[in-house]
Amino acid sequence: MRTGMTYNNLSREKHLIDPAMYSCDILIHNGMILTMDPLLKVISDGMIAIRKDTITYVGPKTASMTGAVTIDAGGGIILPGLVNGHTHTAMTLFRGLADDLPLMEWLTGYIFPAETRIDADFVYTGALLACAEMIYSGTTTFCDMYLFEDKVASASQKSGMRSLVGEVLYDFPSPNYGSIEKGFAYTEYLIQKWKDDPLVSIAVEPHALYTCSPELLQTAHAISMRHNVPLITHLAETHTELAEIQSRYGKSPVAHLESLGLLGPHLIADHCVHLNDSEIERLVQYQVNIITNPESNMKLASGAAPVSSLITRGATVGLGTDGCASNNNLDMFLEMDTAAKLQKIARMDPTALDAVTVLKMATCEGAKALGMGSVTGSLEPGKKADVIVVDTAKPHLTPMYNPYSHLVYAASGADVRHSIINGRLVMKDRQLLTLDAEDIMLRANEKAALVKQWVA
Amino acid sequence: MRTGMTYNNLSREKHLIDPAMYSCDILIHNGMILTMDPLLKVISDGMIAIRKDTITYVGPKTASMTGAVTIDAGGGIILPGLVNGHTHTAMTLFRGLADDLPLMEWLTGYIFPAETRIDADFVYTGALLACAEMIYSGTTTFCDMYLFEDKVASASQKSGMRSLVGEVLYDFPSPNYGSIEKGFAYTEYLIQKWKDDPLVSIAVEPHALYTCSPELLQTAHAISMRHNVPLITHLAETHTELAEIQSRYGKSPVAHLESLGLLGPHLIADHCVHLNDSEIERLVQYQVNIITNPESNMKLASGAAPVSSLITRGATVGLGTDGCASNNNLDMFLEMDTAAKLQKIARMDPTALDAVTVLKMATCEGAKALGMGSVTGSLEPGKKADVIVVDTAKPHLTPMYNPYSHLVYAASGADVRHSIINGRLVMKDRQLLTLDAEDIMLRANEKAALVKQWVA
Repeated sequence: MRTGMTYNNLSREKHLIDPAMYSCDILIHNGMILTMDPLLKVISDGMIAIRKDTITYVGPKTASMTGAVTIDAGGGIILPGLVNGHTHTAMTLFRGLADDLPLMEWLTGYIFPAETRIDADFVYTGALLACAEMIYSGTTTFCDMYLFEDKVASASQKSGMRSLVGEVLYDFPSPNYGSIEKGFAYTEYLIQKWKDDPLVSIAVEPHALYTCSPELLQTAHAISMRHNVPLITHLAETHTELAEIQSRYGKSPVAHLESLGLLGPHLIADHCVHLNDSEIERLVQYQVNIITNPESNMKLASGAAPVSSLITRGATVGLGTDGCASNNNLDMFLEMDTAAKLQKIARMDPTALDAVTVLKMATCEGAKALGMGSVTGSLEPGKKADVIVVDTAKPHLTPMYNPYSHLVYAASGADVRHSIINGRLVMKDRQLLTLDAEDIMLRANEKAALVKQWVA
Repeated sequence: MRTGMTYNNLSREKHLIDPAMYSCDILIHNGMILTMDPLLKVISDGMIAIRKDTITYVGPKTASMTGAVTIDAGGGIILPGLVNGHTHTAMTLFRGLADDLPLMEWLTGYIFPAETRIDADFVYTGALLACAEMIYSGTTTFCDMYLFEDKVASASQKSGMRSLVGEVLYDFPSPNYGSIEKGFAYTEYLIQKWKDDPLVSIAVEPHALYTCSPELLQTAHAISMRHNVPLITHLAETHTELAEIQSRYGKSPVAHLESLGLLGPHLIADHCVHLNDSEIERLVQYQVNIITNPESNMKLASGAAPVSSLITRGATVGLGTDGCASNNNLDMFLEMDTAAKLQKIARMDPTALDAVTVLKMATCEGAKALGMGSVTGSLEPGKKADVIVVDTAKPHLTPMYNPYSHLVYAASGADVRHSIINGRLVMKDRQLLTLDAEDIMLRANEKAALVKQWVA
């Protein structure tokens, strides 16, 4: 074990808790806990207690603790639920519709024609399908950008998943809100409607610099400031975008955002593939949060984001899958593997972006990037109980010298056995408890039949 | 469906078969068959009949066929078992032992010290562990290079897997055979011992140009010629190798092999990352078979092989996982995904290496690269029955517009439900029928305890 792991050397004294807390709602035991806390504490035979929605104990096993429900981790790994920092959930319904195509043919021949036809029920179905897939593969929090986002929020609520969602805003008419004024109004409606929800948070989400006028971006920024919610946009994803922004505004995307006054710790910038050194420096100085999406960047041939440089200089970088039209799944384990390997080959350095750093991107750093660092992303008393258990009693996870290596380089989402979100057991022994996967797949296939007509 | 698929338009007349063949040993039905035959025929609701070790029928479903055993594909995808073209199976026991390290620290601090201590039982245990993992993830044929390969052959035989294996040969003493003369003798012993085995074939396997003298390479070549078995070596994997060969011989690795007279259709060259245009041309002209290992090449920061160029110019290119010390699993589905995405980003072209081409690399082309093109790699009457069934009734494989896309970009090995190798059912409903996974994992963990002592 070479990377900063401090094994269980905690005395019982440090973990004295209120006697009333010796009983809890959910008790997880018989596993190695990767806390992903600031010390990256690892507890080799640990126990976690949950009361209501909150973690009340993380430490060595103790016989004096009892839980209304007990989860046996079976000798596996207990870790924080994964945070998918950027996706378009409803695009699960376009999964595999059009691959291996030039970008413009993909967009204009398939994605755009289909997207003009979608409605709220389409988005709800696709989002439920995504939630089922995400729970199965260990994700407990996701950040979404798409249309009819009230329905994504509903799907998040129904599935029991934590989310940060927002309606995509752009200059052209949307199938949901028509004019951009209505788009802003819809965003404010979402902010009001969901403001007290324990699971769903709302962000203001202008699509990208090449689809949003400076005025749109500044209005979106003002709404974000007024309500103290995150502002999210795609940034510096492709060479085409760089050329377009340079041609329109005589600036790089980062400089354009800076000149509009949009850079700051409230901003979550997705992709950030093409940055020069001074732009990296500015993003760090302004404390902009960054979500990298390596599989999508590879599949669409966008490029390799300078993730190692960003992290080395102090940026908060989370990890996302992007949508299923450019990935084609929502499996954060596979995304972690690709994140590490892409940095290594892009920098021609096998030490670039090690497994611990990548797991942080998918847990504590990812949560921090979404403004949820005090809520989720690590296993610590007082945090909301977002916990997954990985079954390691499988040939491809045997033997185990280093749990971080296994999670990043050898595991897949199918190895997740149990999942708890906000103190609620949402998957037990790979059975979903909040969603009817059969019914969702049936409805997804009905929507796919429509899609085939739309792009025929 | 855009990529060369010809759907089921076959009349019953074309599939008239001997009446005796209407009964068979194993009948697979209720699935979409991707034959991976030269026409890439797809049969939407197909049926496969197997008698003894051989496929006797591939076509539309017919009520008149009965099987002693019937496999219901459950509406999933039926395809040829995957071919892992290059691995070091016993290195499963080093999985995650040392990651994210500089190459020399990884080799000299961990892998070499451990490898000097291994013995036949170590290799047998690691190979069995690998076979369990490979069957679980849809691989039915593998090509191995390591030490004590008689034990890998035994593990292949015990598991029921098809394999091409060979003892690694190099200039320095081996823990198995000591001097190189004994290494050659051991190789000839393997060739004799396994020559009539229905599953195991033997190759002559000099490790690499930088570890084998010209004399060793030429002797290995002569043995390969004499017995008409493949010659396998690592080739042009890293910049370090290029510099080393240039410094020693004043030539590139490809030119060095050519000058030694080793290039030809009997040669299987692993990696081939660093090739210039004229070297690509020479490999194609000599009909050298190439196995690419994208995950290993990324993880060790070796580089991106020119796979698209090789295939476009007519080379036979298969796909391999490499060993678990540099991957860290043997999942060919994940390897396919990475193969496609790495080419796209390396060439900055989203159309590079499409899903169909990648699936060919993992099936028919991979088999051809190993000299097994007439035996396995496609579903055609007369070929050996190496067949897997992928369960697609899962959220992450729903909906399905294109089965090739799903297999390459969305599936993982955990989606494989049944596996048949050489007409023998080796996995049914994810239960291994030839191996005791629990016992193998127990023994693997015992070996891992030794490894920890060796590298402490």
